[in-house]
Amino acid sequence: MTSGVTKFTNCWCLEEDGSLIEADLYVDTNSGKIISGKEFFYSTKDTPTTTIDCDGDIISPGLIDVQINGAYGFDFSLWPPTKTEHLSKDEQVRVYLEGLDKVASKIVETGTTSFLPTIITQQQDLYREVGVYDVCKVASNTPNYQIIPLLRPRSQPRSAHVLGYHAEGPFIASSRKGAHAPPFLLSAPNGLSSIEAVYDSALTKLSTPNTGVKLLTLAPDVDGISAAIKELTKLPDVIVSIGHSDADVDLASQSVDDGARFITHLFNAMPQLHHRDPGVIGLLGNQPIRPFYGLIVDGVHVHPNAVRLAYEAHPKGCVLVTDAMPMMDPHLSDGVHDWRDGRRLLKQGPKLYLENTTTLAGSASTLDECVRNLKTFTHASSFGFALACASYHPASLLRLSHKGNLKVGSDADIVRVDRHQGTVKATYVNGKCVYKM
Amino acid sequence: MTSGVTKFTNCWCLEEDGSLIEADLYVDTNSGKIISGKEFFYSTKDTPTTTIDCDGDIISPGLIDVQINGAYGFDFSLWPPTKTEHLSKDEQVRVYLEGLDKVASKIVETGTTSFLPTIITQQQDLYREVGVYDVCKVASNTPNYQIIPLLRPRSQPRSAHVLGYHAEGPFIASSRKGAHAPPFLLSAPNGLSSIEAVYDSALTKLSTPNTGVKLLTLAPDVDGISAAIKELTKLPDVIVSIGHSDADVDLASQSVDDGARFITHLFNAMPQLHHRDPGVIGLLGNQPIRPFYGLIVDGVHVHPNAVRLAYEAHPKGCVLVTDAMPMMDPHLSDGVHDWRDGRRLLKQGPKLYLENTTTLAGSASTLDECVRNLKTFTHASSFGFALACASYHPASLLRLSHKGNLKVGSDADIVRVDRHQGTVKATYVNGKCVYKM
Repeated sequence: MTSGVTKFTNCWCLEEDGSLIEADLYVDTNSGKIISGKEFFYSTKDTPTTTIDCDGDIISPGLIDVQINGAYGFDFSLWPPTKTEHLSKDEQVRVYLEGLDKVASKIVETGTTSFLPTIITQQQDLYREVGVYDVCKVASNTPNYQIIPLLRPRSQPRSAHVLGYHAEGPFIASSRKGAHAPPFLLSAPNGLSSIEAVYDSALTKLSTPNTGVKLLTLAPDVDGISAAIKELTKLPDVIVSIGHSDADVDLASQSVDDGARFITHLFNAMPQLHHRDPGVIGLLGNQPIRPFYGLIVDGVHVHPNAVRLAYEAHPKGCVLVTDAMPMMDPHLSDGVHDWRDGRRLLKQGPKLYLENTTTLAGSASTLDECVRNLKTFTHASSFGFALACASYHPASLLRLSHKGNLKVGSDADIVRVDRHQGTVKATYVNGKCVYKM
Repeated sequence: MTSGVTKFTNCWCLEEDGSLIEADLYVDTNSGKIISGKEFFYSTKDTPTTTIDCDGDIISPGLIDVQINGAYGFDFSLWPPTKTEHLSKDEQVRVYLEGLDKVASKIVETGTTSFLPTIITQQQDLYREVGVYDVCKVASNTPNYQIIPLLRPRSQPRSAHVLGYHAEGPFIASSRKGAHAPPFLLSAPNGLSSIEAVYDSALTKLSTPNTGVKLLTLAPDVDGISAAIKELTKLPDVIVSIGHSDADVDLASQSVDDGARFITHLFNAMPQLHHRDPGVIGLLGNQPIRPFYGLIVDGVHVHPNAVRLAYEAHPKGCVLVTDAMPMMDPHLSDGVHDWRDGRRLLKQGPKLYLENTTTLAGSASTLDECVRNLKTFTHASSFGFALACASYHPASLLRLSHKGNLKVGSDADIVRVDRHQGTVKATYVNGKCVYKM
């Protein structure tokens, strides 16, 4: 009987502060955990089943994307899924989960081992029906299928983990709606009750494990939201993010005092930094707590100088996100692709435009591309600092202790990255290789 | 015969990086220079004439203010000086220099040992007459007295040094004019020639020592200025600053490539940071060179969060400036004070408003107050980091090697600062005590 232990050697292991330490890493492929090489050797006197010579590559915790709208042709926010209108609800659920699982299985090629499917503002009905729905019976024959219960934590073989979902809207400011559909935006006149009336099961069942909601993007300037943030952040499994908001510096600061810990796609869908009212962006200089902030480093959404400015102002808070659209697919050729409602998008590398316009329509960058861009834009000496922004930092944001680090006992979700090029050489989930370049 | 050497002991000496080192400092009061204590002892076998027990205070290079419009009731930009219209030119010159010297002698109480009187946009005549004026004959009976030749380097006994002047305008963008007088703004259709036609002697005589111009605030978006910057920055004694400008990120970057090395009062009189066109503010993230930037940390002009954001994005570039008005005088009581053109200002602590309005009209903060504010706003662990922004950094900006540091051979312009309160306990110019609390 073999030990089932894999030893990664000749590698540079990523530390939380972005530094790289030359060290071996041991993984138990049976438990799927990172183990102590020393303990393994002394307790079993055994040798690793497999030793991988990493040739000087970086070993990083697997990347975690907390804002991704879709990928590989699948749109997380589209219900029922495209071309399933004629099918039964059961069939629609099957198609949706197939789409979700396709993304989870393919995205590991980008080094991503966990993600939060992100649901942009939808019709209230779509959330409300969920109220009578038992999340424990998803994919059973319960009649009220909805996107959100489908997006509770989910781990399929050889795939990245779905950690739950990120609800971006409908409680956002109409003045900062971006691409969100204006008729579906809501306020919360009854505070937390209004919010529960929308997300319902996701929130009311927060005390039970395995519910889906992880991250909620809210605008504190929307009626009733500021008061609700204080209540929401008491819930053990919800992270509140400020975004799509016109909040001034005092209101933004108050939200952080009340427990908000993230800024959704910094710079986008918020006022510019004004020196006398720095608003949401100014939270990068807030005291005493500075929240994490999502940054779309596709080289398009935020100018390299603004990226560097934000990163250097608050490096420990930087969380790389793709905010990717269904056209995010490294194998998809440039050109015009169908989107939704009959509209089409022009893809040019990482750029997406509404067909025949110069209007940006989301990103097609992969998370590993964002890592490489961040390293370039910040003139960092190694890829370590940028990788930490896509692994350690999002894990801290989500208060995960068992992912997004290389500690003994943590899940062996790891990515091997070329130290000089920043490219993904291999990806492991629960200790098993799920992608190799 | 005594050695004339003063030894500062039991003190924390400020390093360039803002750290504090417990060390003695030796000053030769005859030469006015910092000397090596070891060399002094071994070569002379003598003892210091004076030993000052600093009681654990900080010893910092004297503070340097590169943007100050006036103080102690005197306005550097006002010519002829107030209430001198009936006097002869000779008398006007005398009054002006008395005003200048009064500021220089009093400002040492704020820890400031060098400053650049700053001339805001004036009538072109006022600069142009300077063309026929020999700067070597200032205060002689030459007929064309002007402000600018009066502001060549000047050091009076027991006073801070005037290092030359900072010309803020008239080549600034009318869209970002701030308090500058619109009729006097100019473009530079003939590039450097247009600029020389205005400042004239100051620029044409740059190859001679002792000319006044040190810092020029220019807007590269003004016609002809961008091309001129490249020429100006070749001159050995001119620092070009970008300010009062609508320059986009490409033009601003180009100016830095062309040699511009400062941003005049960051955030004020420039577009807000836009994430896709970060403009002048985005130079804090510029590559490969990031310029210094002036920051008015009076707690009013720039919100503490924006101060912290800028400082943490580019700490080594931060240069504290007062941008002070004639009402800057720690002994001046709050209330309404005469300003100019019959207008009056309301002083409330460091705040100045146009009488009966809420319009800010410059700052009344002292440089040592700005140091204390910066320490508070950035949550720094010591006053060292903030003091470096008012000593080492402006000296580097001005390419001074003999001031703004504590190196052996440098001018003994130093300030003793309470390590816990940040207050100025004593100020020394050329090794002599010029202020004691």
